[in-house]
Amino acid sequence: MTKNTKVNAAILIIGNEILSGRTQDTNTGTLALWLNTIGVKVSEVRVIPDIEQVIIETLNTLRKNFNYVFTTGGIGPTHDDITAESVSKAFGVNYKIHKEAFKILESYYKPGEFNEGRQKMVWMPENAELILNPTSGAPGFSFENVFCLPGVPSILKSMLGGIKNKIVGGEPILSQTISLRTVESEIANSLTKVQDNNKDVEIGSYPFFQAGKLGVSIVIRSEDQSKIDNCNSQILKFVNEKKIEVVDR
Amino acid sequence: MTKNTKVNAAILIIGNEILSGRTQDTNTGTLALWLNTIGVKVSEVRVIPDIEQVIIETLNTLRKNFNYVFTTGGIGPTHDDITAESVSKAFGVNYKIHKEAFKILESYYKPGEFNEGRQKMVWMPENAELILNPTSGAPGFSFENVFCLPGVPSILKSMLGGIKNKIVGGEPILSQTISLRTVESEIANSLTKVQDNNKDVEIGSYPFFQAGKLGVSIVIRSEDQSKIDNCNSQILKFVNEKKIEVVDR
Repeated sequence: MTKNTKVNAAILIIGNEILSGRTQDTNTGTLALWLNTIGVKVSEVRVIPDIEQVIIETLNTLRKNFNYVFTTGGIGPTHDDITAESVSKAFGVNYKIHKEAFKILESYYKPGEFNEGRQKMVWMPENAELILNPTSGAPGFSFENVFCLPGVPSILKSMLGGIKNKIVGGEPILSQTISLRTVESEIANSLTKVQDNNKDVEIGSYPFFQAGKLGVSIVIRSEDQSKIDNCNSQILKFVNEKKIEVVDR
Repeated sequence: MTKNTKVNAAILIIGNEILSGRTQDTNTGTLALWLNTIGVKVSEVRVIPDIEQVIIETLNTLRKNFNYVFTTGGIGPTHDDITAESVSKAFGVNYKIHKEAFKILESYYKPGEFNEGRQKMVWMPENAELILNPTSGAPGFSFENVFCLPGVPSILKSMLGGIKNKIVGGEPILSQTISLRTVESEIANSLTKVQDNNKDVEIGSYPFFQAGKLGVSIVIRSEDQSKIDNCNSQILKFVNEKKIEVVDR
């Protein structure tokens, strides 16, 4: 049996600091690139505020519409960290102390330092599975198809290895980029023809400015290398005919 | 009459390149910070693929739920630029050549260079209002409460001045940050009390690592400076009592 080649995911970024523009989200890129390698395509991202009802409703929509949901943010010790309680309510399960998480943090901190604030971080949906945190102790958790990760990018990154085996992806999503010294309007018609002839391949066209010069990167994405190769030759054919320079980028 | 202090917006980022992780979105931050200054609060961000039906459905949800919607991406000349046609369909209006946009681009390009690819960029929802583009000619457009901007960050930035007068915001959203040499768990309980006593002020707590040291930034947001000042003194009170150092950041 071949693996399902269409496994998708949504990313749910929970945090007023992203919506206010104070903090630049980088977790989307980290998660998307990593998920590509294990055959999971990110199909939607939402950024929402730290409001319980919004989290519950959004999560309940996304977890039904996508194979996996990855949340970031809101699992720390302060009053605005309401992800774990909201996830419990979304699934209609108890929000309670996770015994294994308690033991982990009890031994992580020095005697007397596992205070009330830190103890908040071991409250999770009943029967959640832990996602270990090799950087700063406090675990994330998964419940059914929802994976709850922290917002701090370096900590999130360090936790991905621990969930790889819990995610059943399809074929890895491959991509190839052809960068050209041209402008989009010069190649638009020819590129449309290639896309029309290869409907199951994703072809994107992205203008760039580099060292004061304009260019266009064409990105071909598919799970099937032979389809990418096929598009690649069709693109290079019109590129050569138009005498457009291919550049490194 | 005082201005409505609760004007909100959604940002709709249209583009496979963000979902794939290839490109890091920065337009959210640009738009959110700018909108804060004119009294519009970004309440949701969605990133969706270049798929017509997804764009139509998402736009129809967002434009009903929020005062304003700002879309980015998908208004260039290539096959994957489908924002203008999708917006037309979402509003149920004709997708046709915008005469003023045609004139602008006809005179922007050298004779003979306003080719078929470029002419695609003057197709818009009928009766759309243009958003002028001082950087690269091709205008964006607005239709009712939806503003369609390009994806290239430098071009998007240069177009914001042109829409300021079309947006009726509330009071500007003010914020103050207090950065502390502490960890979140040390202040979690005290900060919860301040939030409970000031329910209409948004208080966020964000850990940071700087020069090898841990810290926490507390961000207070409100349209009312006196409410911010009030929270600020309540926070500094417990900070002093706990002998926590306030740091620059």
